[in-house]
Amino acid sequence: MEELILQSQKFKDLHRETAKYINLNPLQRGGILSDAARKIVNEWADGYSVCDYCGGCLDLIKKPPVEEFVHDKLPKFLGTDTARVTNGAREGKFAVLHTLCEKGDTVLFDSNAHYSSFVAAERVGAEVVTVPNSGHPKFRIDEDSYADKIEEIKKDTGKYPKLALLTYPDGNYGNFSDAKKAGKICHEYDVPFLLNGAYSVGRMHINGKKLNADFVVGSGHKSMAASGPIGVLGTTSEYEDILFRKSAKYKIKELELLGCTSRGLPIITLMASFPHVLERIKRWDTEVANARWFLNKISEIPGIKPLGVQPTEHDLNFIETPVFYEISKRHKKRGYFLQKELKSRGIMGIKPGLTKFFKLSTYLLTTDEIRLVADAFFEIYEKYEGLLK
Amino acid sequence: MEELILQSQKFKDLHRETAKYINLNPLQRGGILSDAARKIVNEWADGYSVCDYCGGCLDLIKKPPVEEFVHDKLPKFLGTDTARVTNGAREGKFAVLHTLCEKGDTVLFDSNAHYSSFVAAERVGAEVVTVPNSGHPKFRIDEDSYADKIEEIKKDTGKYPKLALLTYPDGNYGNFSDAKKAGKICHEYDVPFLLNGAYSVGRMHINGKKLNADFVVGSGHKSMAASGPIGVLGTTSEYEDILFRKSAKYKIKELELLGCTSRGLPIITLMASFPHVLERIKRWDTEVANARWFLNKISEIPGIKPLGVQPTEHDLNFIETPVFYEISKRHKKRGYFLQKELKSRGIMGIKPGLTKFFKLSTYLLTTDEIRLVADAFFEIYEKYEGLLK
Repeated sequence: MEELILQSQKFKDLHRETAKYINLNPLQRGGILSDAARKIVNEWADGYSVCDYCGGCLDLIKKPPVEEFVHDKLPKFLGTDTARVTNGAREGKFAVLHTLCEKGDTVLFDSNAHYSSFVAAERVGAEVVTVPNSGHPKFRIDEDSYADKIEEIKKDTGKYPKLALLTYPDGNYGNFSDAKKAGKICHEYDVPFLLNGAYSVGRMHINGKKLNADFVVGSGHKSMAASGPIGVLGTTSEYEDILFRKSAKYKIKELELLGCTSRGLPIITLMASFPHVLERIKRWDTEVANARWFLNKISEIPGIKPLGVQPTEHDLNFIETPVFYEISKRHKKRGYFLQKELKSRGIMGIKPGLTKFFKLSTYLLTTDEIRLVADAFFEIYEKYEGLLK
Repeated sequence: MEELILQSQKFKDLHRETAKYINLNPLQRGGILSDAARKIVNEWADGYSVCDYCGGCLDLIKKPPVEEFVHDKLPKFLGTDTARVTNGAREGKFAVLHTLCEKGDTVLFDSNAHYSSFVAAERVGAEVVTVPNSGHPKFRIDEDSYADKIEEIKKDTGKYPKLALLTYPDGNYGNFSDAKKAGKICHEYDVPFLLNGAYSVGRMHINGKKLNADFVVGSGHKSMAASGPIGVLGTTSEYEDILFRKSAKYKIKELELLGCTSRGLPIITLMASFPHVLERIKRWDTEVANARWFLNKISEIPGIKPLGVQPTEHDLNFIETPVFYEISKRHKKRGYFLQKELKSRGIMGIKPGLTKFFKLSTYLLTTDEIRLVADAFFEIYEKYEGLLK
């Protein structure tokens, strides 16, 4: 015991080195707290802080006004009939899959779906069929393929898929498909349609009904300026009673949420950041314009080009950078040279070791910061251009 | 949209009224952050903060040293071969149940089990048989009854239960059964044994192996001085590969954890508070002594008596207070008088409206604070004694 105490002293003093850097990691950009949320963090950081006046349901707490947020503001925001908070987007997807599927059932995902969608299906025991993408360089998901795949599943298994999912946008290329059309196709076959908006809800305007979604999933820590882990899950009145079915033994407890989900700081920061989120989605066009400017700029470096559908419609982008890969082969730091050079210029968030391609996000960076990042890539290229000869 | 923005401004300025009160809610007392954790809250409150250097597994992150904490310190602390963090104790229980049970299987719980244990079983589709308690006033769970109930389940269903669970202590009376003995009995029938330590892990010394537990569940926000939501889940090498089985498609992702769980502030506060937690469990005897002093003291008020096994072995206690109920019948505020009177004395955390019985915790209160709380109950009794005549 005394030894464990001694060895654990280091955990007392953990600092986040990246705080002073421009962080290009797409995971991180949309989760930075709003000023309003940051201001109250200390007040609500203890354990179960929001539960002081809980009557048994997190989403019905009146003080702080969780009920108003979850039952009034959140559905309006998502364009759904009802909504809840979850422990994250993946937990929301699992709840839907666990509700709709039996072991051995088939579901249909876009092939650009996040790993956590596949893992959630696997945890449920569902088989996943995927809608193919168009391959390099666009990796586009054709919404019309949902019809082909649904027919194919029907032919192969005798049943329609229990759920169709579209990642909107996907987390690799920032691609959008025509969700409205995909949703319409699914509904023609009576297949419920889930929109995974982990990278859109909180960044841009998303309306589940207008996009024909039966379920909308979002991520608080990824895109809603909230402290993790927290997600949002909206649905229609058609699925409300099924998805949020209550326990037989404890009449007020919702089974898929195990009675309650993201209690504490995550829900309070989600609420505190909500006005900021509503404001920032109005400036989405500027964010897209910034991303396009950045991609155009660094495409001037020989060989560098963005993948995914162009011009980009999202701040998250995937870039092929064969020139940095060539440099890495001749650099003594190998693949890590790029990370080191960026870091010396105050930039982080590119996956360590990657030089051939990587993803990054310019979300909420100022134009000066974006210029600094672009300049950094140019400087690094120019510094090592000689190695290419 | 503009209307939604206008109506949402209120969420910017949410304050926790209870911060300045002595909070007797058992939920809240063990989740108060340590000084070390509080100091770093601002640095790590953004979204996914701990994931800056993630290679794909939360529990393998080296910077901050999550890997060392989860894979070395946590198993040592829990007395298990391996451990992970989860989104909470309930999510840990669900993961175990979901791993071991098929729909229709039977599991055995103590009848004092937390509602979330029952809800987790119901979500899995498992039938729950309970070990009875001794009823009023002790509500004791007899560990020997595990054998009877396992035999009974075998007789009724033809199969042994897939899991036995003991709540250690339960969340109503703070009762402990002989876990070691219950675990031994379960093992004689080859029934895996889960110890729900949501109210013990982080408060007192718990060693899974010594208590014959195959699974140990704990709660970060309830008892480990961490920001919610977060839990811990330990198991033996026998169950490690089953419980933490990996995805077939994504080889490093653990299915029951959906690839990753409580990312962000919860894990970093759990780590930062760990040295404090190790120190405080050494003072557990003092906490129990304080709770006994308090129960003895307020038992001097006519009719007031603690339920559960006495003398208490835990800071969480259930008290029968018929005298306050009698007063409430004659008081113009009815059941709310008690809450109001306590509040005016700087005390919160008794469930609003309750006067006949309620639970409370004295955990980590100073002796002065405990005396203040006891005095408050005496004062309130004396103030309204006249109403009883």
